[in-house]
Amino acid sequence: MQQSLSYARRHRDRFLSELQDFIRFPSVSAQPQHTDDMKRCAAWLASHLRQIGLEQVKIVPTQPYPIVYAEWRHARMRPTVLIYGHYDVQPPDPLHEWRSPPFEPTVRGNDLYGRGACDDKGQMLAHIKALESYLGTADKLPVNIKCLFEGEEEIGSPHLASFLARHKRTLAADVAVLSDMPILAPDRPAITYAMRGGLSMELEVSGPRRDLHSGIFGGAVHNPLQALCTIIARLHDTHGRVAIPGFYDRVRHWSAEERAYMARVGPPDAQILRDAQVGHGWGECGYTLYERTTIRPALTVNGIGGGYQGPGNKSIIPARAMAKLNFRLVPNQDPGEIERLFRQYMARLASPTVRVTMRTHLAAKPALVDRHHPAMRAAAIAYRQGFGATPVFLRSGGTIPVVNTLQELLGVPTVLMGFALPDDHMHAPNEKFHLPNFYNGIATCIWFLAAVGAERGVTAGLPAAASAHDRYGVSARPGGMSRDY
Amino acid sequence: MQQSLSYARRHRDRFLSELQDFIRFPSVSAQPQHTDDMKRCAAWLASHLRQIGLEQVKIVPTQPYPIVYAEWRHARMRPTVLIYGHYDVQPPDPLHEWRSPPFEPTVRGNDLYGRGACDDKGQMLAHIKALESYLGTADKLPVNIKCLFEGEEEIGSPHLASFLARHKRTLAADVAVLSDMPILAPDRPAITYAMRGGLSMELEVSGPRRDLHSGIFGGAVHNPLQALCTIIARLHDTHGRVAIPGFYDRVRHWSAEERAYMARVGPPDAQILRDAQVGHGWGECGYTLYERTTIRPALTVNGIGGGYQGPGNKSIIPARAMAKLNFRLVPNQDPGEIERLFRQYMARLASPTVRVTMRTHLAAKPALVDRHHPAMRAAAIAYRQGFGATPVFLRSGGTIPVVNTLQELLGVPTVLMGFALPDDHMHAPNEKFHLPNFYNGIATCIWFLAAVGAERGVTAGLPAAASAHDRYGVSARPGGMSRDY
Repeated sequence: MQQSLSYARRHRDRFLSELQDFIRFPSVSAQPQHTDDMKRCAAWLASHLRQIGLEQVKIVPTQPYPIVYAEWRHARMRPTVLIYGHYDVQPPDPLHEWRSPPFEPTVRGNDLYGRGACDDKGQMLAHIKALESYLGTADKLPVNIKCLFEGEEEIGSPHLASFLARHKRTLAADVAVLSDMPILAPDRPAITYAMRGGLSMELEVSGPRRDLHSGIFGGAVHNPLQALCTIIARLHDTHGRVAIPGFYDRVRHWSAEERAYMARVGPPDAQILRDAQVGHGWGECGYTLYERTTIRPALTVNGIGGGYQGPGNKSIIPARAMAKLNFRLVPNQDPGEIERLFRQYMARLASPTVRVTMRTHLAAKPALVDRHHPAMRAAAIAYRQGFGATPVFLRSGGTIPVVNTLQELLGVPTVLMGFALPDDHMHAPNEKFHLPNFYNGIATCIWFLAAVGAERGVTAGLPAAASAHDRYGVSARPGGMSRDY
Repeated sequence: MQQSLSYARRHRDRFLSELQDFIRFPSVSAQPQHTDDMKRCAAWLASHLRQIGLEQVKIVPTQPYPIVYAEWRHARMRPTVLIYGHYDVQPPDPLHEWRSPPFEPTVRGNDLYGRGACDDKGQMLAHIKALESYLGTADKLPVNIKCLFEGEEEIGSPHLASFLARHKRTLAADVAVLSDMPILAPDRPAITYAMRGGLSMELEVSGPRRDLHSGIFGGAVHNPLQALCTIIARLHDTHGRVAIPGFYDRVRHWSAEERAYMARVGPPDAQILRDAQVGHGWGECGYTLYERTTIRPALTVNGIGGGYQGPGNKSIIPARAMAKLNFRLVPNQDPGEIERLFRQYMARLASPTVRVTMRTHLAAKPALVDRHHPAMRAAAIAYRQGFGATPVFLRSGGTIPVVNTLQELLGVPTVLMGFALPDDHMHAPNEKFHLPNFYNGIATCIWFLAAVGAERGVTAGLPAAASAHDRYGVSARPGGMSRDY
């Protein structure tokens, strides 16, 4: 293993340049104009996996964007690790706020800037480079490996579940690992053990069949933008709580012990405000900001558009208005039920003077991993070696649909091993990856594979079926749920 | 005059083709990229005025867009008519809704489609073609003429008042006329005697310094779009009234007689709903839709933008959100006072979690013209001849800043003589001009000049100073206000 670590150190410059090649593909899954870029990116990735010595490399033509699969299965009697990552990225808008173009990766100081630098190209490449560091030196790996890299994560992985269901046997593994989240600081690593679920909806309010002159008709015709704002304003009460009836009914309440643990290891309010670069917190009373973003659900407005947005003014009552909404859900909320409650509430708020239509873009269940699972121990060892510090176990407010899907369909717990930083601007302009984290991440992945290979409990600890362990399907703790989850 | 009328009939095809040339200039005053188009359009207009025999034609280099002036002053002892028009147009957005390109004027059936077809290029050209019909036959006009064509009407005529103040003597006239509004139907002409004032504001709400990941921070950081919606939702109460404290304090109440007159001649609710192509009315209780759009003020949201508006979804809390607002004001509301009340209300609604900034785009006072003025009689005669029907006197919900300005600065009443139709899509995609109205409009203008020339009261009726006649500066009735205004 020392050889692998030293191989990784020697080839840092090439690894960086390969990451830059990877980022140059504008693989924006949400925007159909990038369909070709998506395909070229998948081809580059597959060829790269072949080159480092992985086998059975396939570009599976799932629609609209292919899944890239690869494996190495010569570690007899050792556990099998499924490495998940995604090669698609968020849209780069607003473009004018980037200091360097999003798809021309640029190093400034210790950071590499570019869309996808950390989410998720940089973090998934850390795993690939760890595999290369083994295969390029010892010509073998300490565990069996299956790589599953998808191109639809940023649009909610709409086809991943059916793919997993169809290929259960091919993908069978003892543990999954993925890196697509921040740690606390370069010297404060963290392992994520909970993710929120997600539900993205689009709301359209239509009024007159065409834009109307606001002088001629202003005061006599209901304005779709005004109607939309009235709806949005009624989505929260004055205490920062979501006002949809029934929304909190299934939200799990946590024990004082769990909340005390969270308070001890999680970021304090001041840290979260610093990361967000805002002066004031906001939201549900009675919870810390860390709690509000992890064990409490949230509803955010991602975008609104309607009418004239150019320079100066245009005197119209617009024909329609649109809002994009994003729910973050927690155990035991179910996206399907929340969607139904939302639609019912919309029907209640509806006015005969406008028409409201809704579309669902994505839905994903929340996920929870037992932080005492043996693979979690292996990850903790790996971080201590790779980052020189003991990691804490954190909850994340983000959503990675695959975590719940892997749990439900394959019965596999997922180790969520982040290498990004809170200020890496994931999803925002000037996304970056802190290069020391890239290099330490590769070392951590090298250590992780060795530790999982040595850890006796990983294979034994695998639950036969997830559903036996948690009636809500959100935990992967073998042997039953502990009360404080 | 019969010679002029027959000249106008003979040259209809050329007049139409000249109107098409005029529309081809994308003279969008709100959009700086059209600065050159504005200048070319002004040059075309000036050259056209010279060509038909007007004198002293000047392109006055007011900033940003020139005023085009022309005159003919050889009708001794006759009244002087100031013809006002504007050669700038509204932005053509949303472009994809146009059936033919906005600046490629296209005849379909009896209508000419194009941005500016009726607002105001077609309607102002009707006056120019009437002048040409006299000068091309009798070589003289029945009145003295001064033409004042500006290029900033659609951005609120920000520099017209100072121009009028500087050139009071050059522009001195007995009456002004302008055509920039609809009549009721092709066989139901109308003369407008009241216009609402306007106030356009832009509101920006800023939160985090950059877009934030809605998973990581959702529930802990105030969302500028949500904050904006809360503000917009609080601009109206649940009864459709503007909720800004003090907003209605100066709104004039009208006598039962005036409201009965309005009910008799004005469009019924069903007609307004048909024109707007909507199924339901909306707004302030206790008033007809015609009243809501004329004697009652209104506040409309013209546009909102913020966050991600592309296809699919993007999980962000956006850094900022923007709304464009448009007030329509009635006597005796003052735009300056309303702006102050609005800013005070915004300060009251402000939350420490976001920053709200405001900008004022335009402000214009409401206007009112005595419907018994002799020039109004002349206009009624002209319509009877040009359209074959007696016009009614209507109020308009629109705003033409120059009407109040001409009244206040030059003491001139303005005859508002529309040729457009309610479904001409002014300010909207597929703006059109009904060609029979163009031709009847030219005939009406020919008759109007003759009638004003013959009308003894026009010159005599000119008030020395407007302020003497109405303490609110919104009327032009010579000899004092009648009680029911």
